[in-house]
Amino acid sequence: MSDTEHLDLQSVLDDIYAAVEPRRGEGKVADYIPQLARIDPKSFGMAIVTVNGKVFSVGDAAVPFSIQSISKVFTLTLALGKHGERLWKRVGREPSGSAFNSIVQLEHEGGKPRNPFINAGAITISDLILAGHTPREVIGEILRFMRMLADDEDISIDPQVAKSEAATGFRNAALANFMRSFGKLDHPVEHVLGVYFHHCAIAMTCVQLARAGLFLANNGQQPGTGHSIVSRQRARRINALMLTCGHYDGSGDFAYHVGLPGKSGVGGGIMAVAPGKAAVAVWSPGLNENGNSQLGSVALEMLANRTGWSVFGA
Amino acid sequence: MSDTEHLDLQSVLDDIYAAVEPRRGEGKVADYIPQLARIDPKSFGMAIVTVNGKVFSVGDAAVPFSIQSISKVFTLTLALGKHGERLWKRVGREPSGSAFNSIVQLEHEGGKPRNPFINAGAITISDLILAGHTPREVIGEILRFMRMLADDEDISIDPQVAKSEAATGFRNAALANFMRSFGKLDHPVEHVLGVYFHHCAIAMTCVQLARAGLFLANNGQQPGTGHSIVSRQRARRINALMLTCGHYDGSGDFAYHVGLPGKSGVGGGIMAVAPGKAAVAVWSPGLNENGNSQLGSVALEMLANRTGWSVFGA
Amino acid sequence: MSDTEHLDLQSVLDDIYAAVEPRRGEGKVADYIPQLARIDPKSFGMAIVTVNGKVFSVGDAAVPFSIQSISKVFTLTLALGKHGERLWKRVGREPSGSAFNSIVQLEHEGGKPRNPFINAGAITISDLILAGHTPREVIGEILRFMRMLADDEDISIDPQVAKSEAATGFRNAALANFMRSFGKLDHPVEHVLGVYFHHCAIAMTCVQLARAGLFLANNGQQPGTGHSIVSRQRARRINALMLTCGHYDGSGDFAYHVGLPGKSGVGGGIMAVAPGKAAVAVWSPGLNENGNSQLGSVALEMLANRTGWSVFGA
Amino acid sequence: MSDTEHLDLQSVLDDIYAAVEPRRGEGKVADYIPQLARIDPKSFGMAIVTVNGKVFSVGDAAVPFSIQSISKVFTLTLALGKHGERLWKRVGREPSGSAFNSIVQLEHEGGKPRNPFINAGAITISDLILAGHTPREVIGEILRFMRMLADDEDISIDPQVAKSEAATGFRNAALANFMRSFGKLDHPVEHVLGVYFHHCAIAMTCVQLARAGLFLANNGQQPGTGHSIVSRQRARRINALMLTCGHYDGSGDFAYHVGLPGKSGVGGGIMAVAPGKAAVAVWSPGLNENGNSQLGSVALEMLANRTGWSVFGA
Repeated sequence: MSDTEHLDLQSVLDDIYAAVEPRRGEGKVADYIPQLARIDPKSFGMAIVTVNGKVFSVGDAAVPFSIQSISKVFTLTLALGKHGERLWKRVGREPSGSAFNSIVQLEHEGGKPRNPFINAGAITISDLILAGHTPREVIGEILRFMRMLADDEDISIDPQVAKSEAATGFRNAALANFMRSFGKLDHPVEHVLGVYFHHCAIAMTCVQLARAGLFLANNGQQPGTGHSIVSRQRARRINALMLTCGHYDGSGDFAYHVGLPGKSGVGGGIMAVAPGKAAVAVWSPGLNENGNSQLGSVALEMLANRTGWSVFGA
Repeated sequence: MSDTEHLDLQSVLDDIYAAVEPRRGEGKVADYIPQLARIDPKSFGMAIVTVNGKVFSVGDAAVPFSIQSISKVFTLTLALGKHGERLWKRVGREPSGSAFNSIVQLEHEGGKPRNPFINAGAITISDLILAGHTPREVIGEILRFMRMLADDEDISIDPQVAKSEAATGFRNAALANFMRSFGKLDHPVEHVLGVYFHHCAIAMTCVQLARAGLFLANNGQQPGTGHSIVSRQRARRINALMLTCGHYDGSGDFAYHVGLPGKSGVGGGIMAVAPGKAAVAVWSPGLNENGNSQLGSVALEMLANRTGWSVFGA
Repeated sequence: MSDTEHLDLQSVLDDIYAAVEPRRGEGKVADYIPQLARIDPKSFGMAIVTVNGKVFSVGDAAVPFSIQSISKVFTLTLALGKHGERLWKRVGREPSGSAFNSIVQLEHEGGKPRNPFINAGAITISDLILAGHTPREVIGEILRFMRMLADDEDISIDPQVAKSEAATGFRNAALANFMRSFGKLDHPVEHVLGVYFHHCAIAMTCVQLARAGLFLANNGQQPGTGHSIVSRQRARRINALMLTCGHYDGSGDFAYHVGLPGKSGVGGGIMAVAPGKAAVAVWSPGLNENGNSQLGSVALEMLANRTGWSVFGA
Repeated sequence: MSDTEHLDLQSVLDDIYAAVEPRRGEGKVADYIPQLARIDPKSFGMAIVTVNGKVFSVGDAAVPFSIQSISKVFTLTLALGKHGERLWKRVGREPSGSAFNSIVQLEHEGGKPRNPFINAGAITISDLILAGHTPREVIGEILRFMRMLADDEDISIDPQVAKSEAATGFRNAALANFMRSFGKLDHPVEHVLGVYFHHCAIAMTCVQLARAGLFLANNGQQPGTGHSIVSRQRARRINALMLTCGHYDGSGDFAYHVGLPGKSGVGGGIMAVAPGKAAVAVWSPGLNENGNSQLGSVALEMLANRTGWSVFGA
């Protein structure tokens, strides 16, 4: 009998939904690109997929949203597949202690990003995935990977979002050019940013996202197909990185309150992993001061409290 | 039946001991105070205390060593008991992204330390524990707390170490004066540092230390006595803080390789917690480049691999 | 005929006095020690002493005030006399690009202060002057030096100010302990700070101060006595340091508007040097956002405009 | 009779030439673009143009070299002509306290560069000069300005250098994109960098450069034509900026040793101004650790010592 069998997860989700209802619209919706600013700030969806394959959901769990930085978990997974542990010569594994797009540490540390989840690190990961291929090929590869993981061919990249990112992504262009100035990128800045902007523009629903992350809750295997996506050890390690670095300069706070490995995106999504139990996705566009979904964090804290899924104790 | 029953933990420890044997002496022993520099660099001890009360140990597990920063976990626990969650107005909960004794972030953030485990944060915690009492009273209180947790009246403070810390602790004096200049300490710098230097000078064995940390593995309760040291939630939260901030600028790396909440000290000790299973202490004086016990980290990684205790998946 | 003969300097001072009259009280009086906060914010005095020995003054030019950081010019002069150019192994010569009491750069640059006029640098200079002597001896030496330069035995140290500096100088204690932690101070922190706090507490009038700085306007020689205080080259170099570093993070601005080497203090004084022409002192307690006397800066800009004394062109 | 009449400036130059002869080739030639790396490291030229119109020169004073950052003095002059003192809302006037291409301060200060002579500041100046025009128009305007100032129609932009700058200028692209991300550039990054890369690629001889800077030594007027290039006050102010910020993080050192306002470039040139006396240009490609011409600095120190031209005293 699985640890999750005794829990009525649908009731838990329903309770969470009711609890956040009066707070819908809290936080500040990201407005740096028009496509994000236009989202209904009261959207709220949440989905749980257990390692037994059960799916529970509530609210706007079937509405696609821009996964943004959550995609970094999957590009990291791909890059580890291509480069193995050598990857860590190019990116660190430590929390950054500063904003997600800070350029300061990059200067102090010679162009080597602190971890793969800050923007500079994820841009480096895009460079690593390119590995001599064209941006188009690599973007296709990432998309196919997401579809395979979520077992859903409908997942796509929002071309408007990708275009807006490219048009307004001056900070990311600064980061990429800066790393290039240290000789830390192998491919042209435009190619690297092309890949980066496109994987951030992938649109997914909560259900799709929870399904895609399930291998991380299941020792690296997809429960449905039995496919081994990564080794047991690698699954643990990616979870560790999410826990220490997954929420920018709010990672400590998220660990403190929620206690689950997770990764947030400025589109308002968070994907979280309860090892051995389930993958969870939540979406609520309003962000807190650290750039993480405000109600999404609240909802996951409630979930952790109700289920006892915190990795830090029941 | 407990999760740990099927494991032959003594064999695991013996194997670890054999594996690190040829590497004894690796790393750099802290030499900033004479008492630490004098330790035999080849010392190695390790102890596991399970939530069922079983004790396993190997090597120098009964030799007292200077617990140094590991004491910060216990002073934090005391301070949370006195001040509750208001404590977080004075100290942050985020990884620092820099060296344990950096003063830079303190300036940028107006004298508020990033977390209770960097030196500045622990000094603030000493200030909070003082709460109008004399340093002597408070030092006594900390010592009694440690003895109670470890169920061992033999634990004491090494007066030579405490004196050396005070005599050479210019960096800590800088941190304390700096915070005082921001109005962030309530008590005289000398009193605060007096408390700080003394709790860092507590000497304990691996067995004592694992016993003392056991409440964090057992939802806040001491298994033997049934005493509730902290609430379930608080135990989880302290574990979360150890995981994200417990190893200075090597916290991400420790999470990646070991996957257990833990706290290291420059004396070469590490205390780690496997929630629901056991508390572990390891001691080996040689430090790695981040100031954490080199073989201690290796030993804990082996332990996590052998036991499947990583919080991030089996 | 001297360059200054054709100028009616008394009229210039009278005009300046009239011009600042309606603005008296502008700026913020330093309040970090009670003795400074108690000063009448409307005080204003100014004095010019030409290399021909003529003295012109206006307003409160005969009222003693706390010279604070202006004293750093004189302790630097003393330290250069004792250690020569080797002194620069201990202190840099570059503008700091940050606040006068920043500790950040000190960490990045291993405890070596950027220049002798930021607090950390001046504390290092105090350490260098000590040179094995007692604080009492060295404080006496500094005071005698000031009396000799100003040709006035009445100059003294305000004991209340010195005591207040010591009691509240946590930031300076942080800087000193921090440098000591890098092994960058030769004497005990208390001794070094004792010297530093006392020379900052010297009280002088505008007339005394202008007289004391006159050697810097006269190629290192005192015009009256013919004594050579420093070599021509050293006089030029001290002037260069004042111009690039004399006004904390407002040094560029002061050079831009006034164009004279000068040194300010938080007591509201500024001493400026017109090479080959005169030394000037002005006092007005209200400080601008960079911690320099607001009306003092204005008055010196008017003076430079009227006299054509800017070192950057007529 | 002018102050400079009594000096045999040709002898002074000849002596300097002889003194640096054995040291030719010292320092490190900039190699970040091929065109600079290819220069003969033993090149050395120097020219003085007095306010009376006399020209003295020695060595390779008639060989064109890449003026690089020296051009920033002239683009600042142009931008001040277009925008007046409002310009300072966009750029500061303080020494940076860090490397010429640091991005750190830019982040801490919200995208406003510290002064017009660090790269970020000069890029902002290019943005200001654009003022709605095309890069081609503005590059033409800058070139005509240089030809007019030097009274020499032969001055041109080295297209190879400009192209190389563009191809390898990742750090500058990072700075520009970074400022754009703060909304601090009005024109497209490519346009702004186009202007910047081209004015840095202007090639001039020492004689041309000294002539071009002469207005700064002559109260803003060109001695030959009597044209007023800038007002007296503005000439003084540009000189002040050169003195405090003209040599990156070696500005304090240059002021200390030479005592003349000046601006260096990584091509190995330095233009210096002796107010009321002369403009000087020196060229020697080997750079010191701060990125300023090593022998050029030495030569100017000798010149200042021999002539007594230091602005800080005879």
